Amino acid sequence: MTRTRYFTAMTLDGFLATEDHSLDWLLTRDAGDQSGPLGIDAFLTEIGAIAMGASTYEWILRHHPDDPWFYSQPCWVFTHRDLPAKEGADLTFTQAPVDEVWQEMAAAAGEADIWLVGGGDLVGQFHDAGHLDELLVSIAPVTIGAGRPLLPRHVELRLTELDRLGELAVARYAVLR
Amino acid sequence: MTRTRYFTAMTLDGFLATEDHSLDWLLTRDAGDQSGPLGIDAFLTEIGAIAMGASTYEWILRHHPDDPWFYSQPCWVFTHRDLPAKEGADLTFTQAPVDEVWQEMAAAAGEADIWLVGGGDLVGQFHDAGHLDELLVSIAPVTIGAGRPLLPRHVELRLTELDRLGELAVARYAVLR
Repeated sequence: MTRTRYFTAMTLDGFLATEDHSLDWLLTRDAGDQSGPLGIDAFLTEIGAIAMGASTYEWILRHHPDDPWFYSQPCWVFTHRDLPAKEGADLTFTQAPVDEVWQEMAAAAGEADIWLVGGGDLVGQFHDAGHLDELLVSIAPVTIGAGRPLLPRHVELRLTELDRLGELAVARYAVLR
Repeated sequence: MTRTRYFTAMTLDGFLATEDHSLDWLLTRDAGDQSGPLGIDAFLTEIGAIAMGASTYEWILRHHPDDPWFYSQPCWVFTHRDLPAKEGADLTFTQAPVDEVWQEMAAAAGEADIWLVGGGDLVGQFHDAGHLDELLVSIAPVTIGAGRPLLPRHVELRLTELDRLGELAVARYAVLR
């Protein structure tokens, strides 16, 4: 059964990025051994389809212009603008409702899971449509006071796992309905 | 050496309370055994002086009108308004700069520590004045999307302890300078 999972990093005060989309507060941290059970490497092996918002996609293009695309899985990018396609990426640019896209993603994922990369409002839209099962949040040891919110919704959770990964605290939550 | 410590609870997305000062998202949780090393009971034994903002003080008055005051330590309440004094509490209402008040508090605390109860902006003012050594944050398994911020500042931290307490994740941080 495909799970829809939000794997992200944030500041202690709940921001994914500064207002101007900087992740410097995160990228300066030691994120430990990401090959363990709470790291991105293990996570990615369980993922069959990916969704992200336009700002997240543009951040990757801007910060990794010369790197190959990271993901082998099909990726849906929600955007109202024309965006350049990254070479080697299996991309679908979409403006369709999240529920409709989720059906396509679930079909593509098969038995594997769906990764919602962010941002927070896109994940909120999936939650509104009933498609959010898990949060896996790496918490960086910093507050920044303002920025892009983790998940601008009221969502009830249950803590299922908690550990350290390098300088980060990592918490896994089941979404309650 | 007196440490200045911010012990609080927040939502996963970094809010101390809703915009209208509700803590219902917190008070419905099982907070586990608070007599352990990360709980409020052990914490309070190390505290010799307390500071809080007017909203926090008023919240206590409003929600515990018939209860005795919780704290034996002297407590400074930062307010620009006239507030009623709670019977049995060792209170000082002040509008003085936080640095000046901190000196009074440190003198009262002696070898014990100072507890900054909140809200976030008051703690930020202590931080601005160089008086913030530790954060001890209980993270409730819920997002609420908007509310009173944890600490509206850029503060660099180091994770020193991480554990579960009932339904909560509890993280202790040293403030880096």
